Amino acid sequence: MGEFELIRNFFAAAPCAQGGEGVALGIGDDCALLDVPFGEQLAISTDTLVAGVHFADPCDPFLLGQRSLAVAASDLAAMGATPLAFTLALTLPTVDADWLEAYARGLNLMAQGCGLRLIGGDTTRGPLCLTLTVFGRVPNGQALTRSGAQPGDLLCVGGELGNGAGALPLVLNQLSAGPSIAEPLLAHYWSPQPQLALGQVLRGKATAALDISDGLLADCGHIAAASRVGLLIENDRLPISLALQEFLGDAGAQQAALSGGDDYVLAFTLPAVELPTLLADGWPIHVIGRVVEGRGVGLLDVDGQDITPTIRGYQHFGI
Amino acid sequence: MGEFELIRNFFAAAPCAQGGEGVALGIGDDCALLDVPFGEQLAISTDTLVAGVHFADPCDPFLLGQRSLAVAASDLAAMGATPLAFTLALTLPTVDADWLEAYARGLNLMAQGCGLRLIGGDTTRGPLCLTLTVFGRVPNGQALTRSGAQPGDLLCVGGELGNGAGALPLVLNQLSAGPSIAEPLLAHYWSPQPQLALGQVLRGKATAALDISDGLLADCGHIAAASRVGLLIENDRLPISLALQEFLGDAGAQQAALSGGDDYVLAFTLPAVELPTLLADGWPIHVIGRVVEGRGVGLLDVDGQDITPTIRGYQHFGI
Repeated sequence: MGEFELIRNFFAAAPCAQGGEGVALGIGDDCALLDVPFGEQLAISTDTLVAGVHFADPCDPFLLGQRSLAVAASDLAAMGATPLAFTLALTLPTVDADWLEAYARGLNLMAQGCGLRLIGGDTTRGPLCLTLTVFGRVPNGQALTRSGAQPGDLLCVGGELGNGAGALPLVLNQLSAGPSIAEPLLAHYWSPQPQLALGQVLRGKATAALDISDGLLADCGHIAAASRVGLLIENDRLPISLALQEFLGDAGAQQAALSGGDDYVLAFTLPAVELPTLLADGWPIHVIGRVVEGRGVGLLDVDGQDITPTIRGYQHFGI
Repeated sequence: MGEFELIRNFFAAAPCAQGGEGVALGIGDDCALLDVPFGEQLAISTDTLVAGVHFADPCDPFLLGQRSLAVAASDLAAMGATPLAFTLALTLPTVDADWLEAYARGLNLMAQGCGLRLIGGDTTRGPLCLTLTVFGRVPNGQALTRSGAQPGDLLCVGGELGNGAGALPLVLNQLSAGPSIAEPLLAHYWSPQPQLALGQVLRGKATAALDISDGLLADCGHIAAASRVGLLIENDRLPISLALQEFLGDAGAQQAALSGGDDYVLAFTLPAVELPTLLADGWPIHVIGRVVEGRGVGLLDVDGQDITPTIRGYQHFGI
């Protein structure tokens, strides 16, 4: 038995790979088989993380295991999909049992938290690189796309912004901070919590949605373009954590919230009539702006003045 | 717009990405959406190809485009699945428009030949690496797994063996050959033809199946283990191409057929009663042995003598 086959067996033995609802056949054959209930569609998303590009190398493999699945699962949340399963394509320079054990432990913890089962993949030798493909199910026609925002809708986000970008200098050891700042930021970076439940509750309510991975402005640009509308963001309504504000100051925190990536928080447009019930039910929804006729994304200050030009120039913005 | 977004747009413009039967939503949102007809299951397989490991670097990107999808689609053939769609996770060291144009052209040609549509993926910077995930559909309970072989069944393959392994020294420029030898071998290597139609016709007939990627002996070992049976292969019945025989001689060709990888030909077990009709219908089926009580894989010479020990020792064999 080759060492890469040993690895496959190692992952196959993980609790999350034992099949279950929706998984008709898991690891070990030429294909896995999924059951998709009548009246539902299968949602699919693929994310690649490259060592030295998307994460520091070396890094803690347990944390990497959590993060690699979380960022992929966040796309299911953005679609309003119910999590089902995932595949893992793992390219490794060497076979290091300790590394693998820790990586699989982090992966499995996130998989259990998200309700995702490992159903297959590939294991190859080469520069460290991870490609995860996640699968979810969603009732026909109820997926949350980016293209349905309507003028008059509210623009909302599902949680604090900028924490992922704020954590980056800590991850890269470029800056340091006390535990009251570092711990929540690093937790957000290494173990983002895909907003799967929020995504599902927004089905049939939100008119457009995505998860913020490239930064709020860039990603709102995607909704604006796909929906052929304009989005106005009110600068003073951005939810910013105390830790981020203490760490980067007001201006730095605001910049992280507007253009930092790695938030993995949902951004969505919502008819105002839907808001009261969602808030009453305790969903973490922050209104940060509104949908208007037009194109692109604008930023307003506390007096309603357009301050967009000062924050232009980020990649993706305004597409 | 970033250069990697340009690439995404480039692939999104490919003919194979325009949606169609089964694809409810293609490239451009957080997830793609697939429709799976009532009464059918979704078959999923993932393959990674790493530069310098699974293909020479540099190599012709057009040929790589064809090959990268073909080897993944072959797993759908092995399952008896009807091809539906695929995702591409492309990690590139630099953005080279000529390379991308040629790669996409080869990929699209194979996609059209296979009936597969590109529905999403990811594009990242890093050492050249490709992960393709393919999707097919198969009627509930009719997928061809590895685990149903029964003593008494015939052991069959869907075409000539060893051509992929025979081509390897030509691909790596370790050996040369005249065009009558080199062309068919290289064509098999760079543009393997996944046996998708054969896989589908074997539904409800074959008791076990896979595609030969690790070599005949190793892969028959997988069927034997999953089905808890023994497989006996008759050495003189291996279908070997004239080109391979002329290139490597009798012994070399036989070794390539038994233990060379990269065949992407189906191997399957079949109740004898099914054979005449399939042959009469013109399917390329070669009987190379039979299923017996027991465990593992044995090789018999023309006189029925067990010559297994002489070919032991290949990775995977005998698991």
